[in-house]
Amino acid sequence: MNPPVSRSALKGGTAYIDEQFVPISEARIPILDWGFLRSDSTYDVVHVWQGSFFRLDDHLNRFLRGMQQLHMTLPHNRDRIREILFECVKLSGLHDAYVEMICTRGVPTAGSRDPRHCINRFYAFAVPFVWIADPERQKEGLHLIISHVHRIPETSVDPTIKNYHWLDLVAGLYEAYSRGGETAILSDREGNAIEGPGFNIFVVKKGKLTTPGRGVLEGITRRTVIEMGQMLNIPVETRNVSAEEVRQADEVFITSTAGGIMPVTKVDSRLLGDGKPGPITSQLHKQYWSLHQDSRYVSPVPYVSE
Amino acid sequence: MNPPVSRSALKGGTAYIDEQFVPISEARIPILDWGFLRSDSTYDVVHVWQGSFFRLDDHLNRFLRGMQQLHMTLPHNRDRIREILFECVKLSGLHDAYVEMICTRGVPTAGSRDPRHCINRFYAFAVPFVWIADPERQKEGLHLIISHVHRIPETSVDPTIKNYHWLDLVAGLYEAYSRGGETAILSDREGNAIEGPGFNIFVVKKGKLTTPGRGVLEGITRRTVIEMGQMLNIPVETRNVSAEEVRQADEVFITSTAGGIMPVTKVDSRLLGDGKPGPITSQLHKQYWSLHQDSRYVSPVPYVSE
Repeated sequence: MNPPVSRSALKGGTAYIDEQFVPISEARIPILDWGFLRSDSTYDVVHVWQGSFFRLDDHLNRFLRGMQQLHMTLPHNRDRIREILFECVKLSGLHDAYVEMICTRGVPTAGSRDPRHCINRFYAFAVPFVWIADPERQKEGLHLIISHVHRIPETSVDPTIKNYHWLDLVAGLYEAYSRGGETAILSDREGNAIEGPGFNIFVVKKGKLTTPGRGVLEGITRRTVIEMGQMLNIPVETRNVSAEEVRQADEVFITSTAGGIMPVTKVDSRLLGDGKPGPITSQLHKQYWSLHQDSRYVSPVPYVSE
Repeated sequence: MNPPVSRSALKGGTAYIDEQFVPISEARIPILDWGFLRSDSTYDVVHVWQGSFFRLDDHLNRFLRGMQQLHMTLPHNRDRIREILFECVKLSGLHDAYVEMICTRGVPTAGSRDPRHCINRFYAFAVPFVWIADPERQKEGLHLIISHVHRIPETSVDPTIKNYHWLDLVAGLYEAYSRGGETAILSDREGNAIEGPGFNIFVVKKGKLTTPGRGVLEGITRRTVIEMGQMLNIPVETRNVSAEEVRQADEVFITSTAGGIMPVTKVDSRLLGDGKPGPITSQLHKQYWSLHQDSRYVSPVPYVSE
């Protein structure tokens, strides 16, 4: 066994591995875990903002559903998982955090190729808040490239089960860099925009919001935008969105737990409108962050003062 | 730093992690490595049989090509990687081994989402030989299910870059189990057979061999079968193979570094022919293992006697 970890070593980033809380810099998983060697994992990411989890129960629901779909079970029930996530954040001392929970297939018994024989494993960690685009960058808006790479289709891997199959998204990123962009949206073979590395997309046209309806992760930030549309009387449609609709939009923004609602102001090297974040994007952005004060959405972390 | 590892602890399985050789049971990778959290990795597996690597240079070539395609670089050159693999096997003392080399994107700098800023990482390990179907099971032949899941298409992830995107293959396995089979072959959306979890497929019809020509990993065992076809005057075609051709074949076999050439005798609960491994499969099986004595294909491991 390892020696007990000092509390100060956990500050700034804490992981939960093999029933122990460890400093994030020392957090390691077995190389033989099929969660790595077969990417046979599901996960979820929730953020903590100004000391409170945002929509934690929605993230937990999605995580537990994904596990079930992948035939995975854990010795921990939902309450225990919730408790571990709170503990990771408390021990890290972070008030703005990116908190990940992971279930992997686990390590096979020697020589076995049968996933049913594995004992599934749970890992979690809290690290400082991660932005796809930080607030400074958001003032300008992002330069998005519509990639030639196709997002892995839902007939191969169910995108509603949050997963680590990212090689298509990474290829899209490298394509974006080579074409002068910052990030990419992948499409399907019919030319519809799907999703990007860690985010959903919305287009605004004539005061109406549209977001791809299938082939995508059903993001919690995406859902929040759909709900805010109802609150703010902005019509929202979920349906196929062609690449051309993205290029011709009045406004475009991306949504992610890693940063919330982030404006796109350039698509394939062309400015959208006047090249500034648009009014509906700004309205939703403001509303999104104000929901972080709303007790229906947040779960405060009871930090221990030292 | 960790204390030095005793040589006896390395017996039976050795990994190379962070420039050190460690017992496989203690081999761990950082949880934050994008090789795990984005499955942003490439790898290769070579086997050692009766004390010699089989076609090691072909595996190294494929691995290095995959790294290049994914924009990955390592401080180790090809000779050093080769040396590390030999060392893993020597230290493990295994004469029949499954040897894996891995390159991952690495751990991002804090807060970054840009893969270009990562320092790529190299891992390797040697464990006892793994069979998809062991020799006893091969006498009977496998029961293969043609899955309804589609293999991730090459327009999303290039299958010739060996990767860990297996959730489609794992779903295929669970489907096979639920339908009474042992393993599965996935198809594309046009209904062509593609590949299974860790293997390529061949069908034999009227003395002729056929294997899918696209959408697949170009397996080294697959290549060996194509070359053996030339040696043994058996015609081999690489082209689309429909699911129906698999069901109607005279013989079917699968190929993998994890077990070589393994007969399939039942497809979708129906026996192929008389339900026994067929003559061409048996001939190729015999030839495949005799090539493991051929100095053009093997690289003996200089074990250290103790």
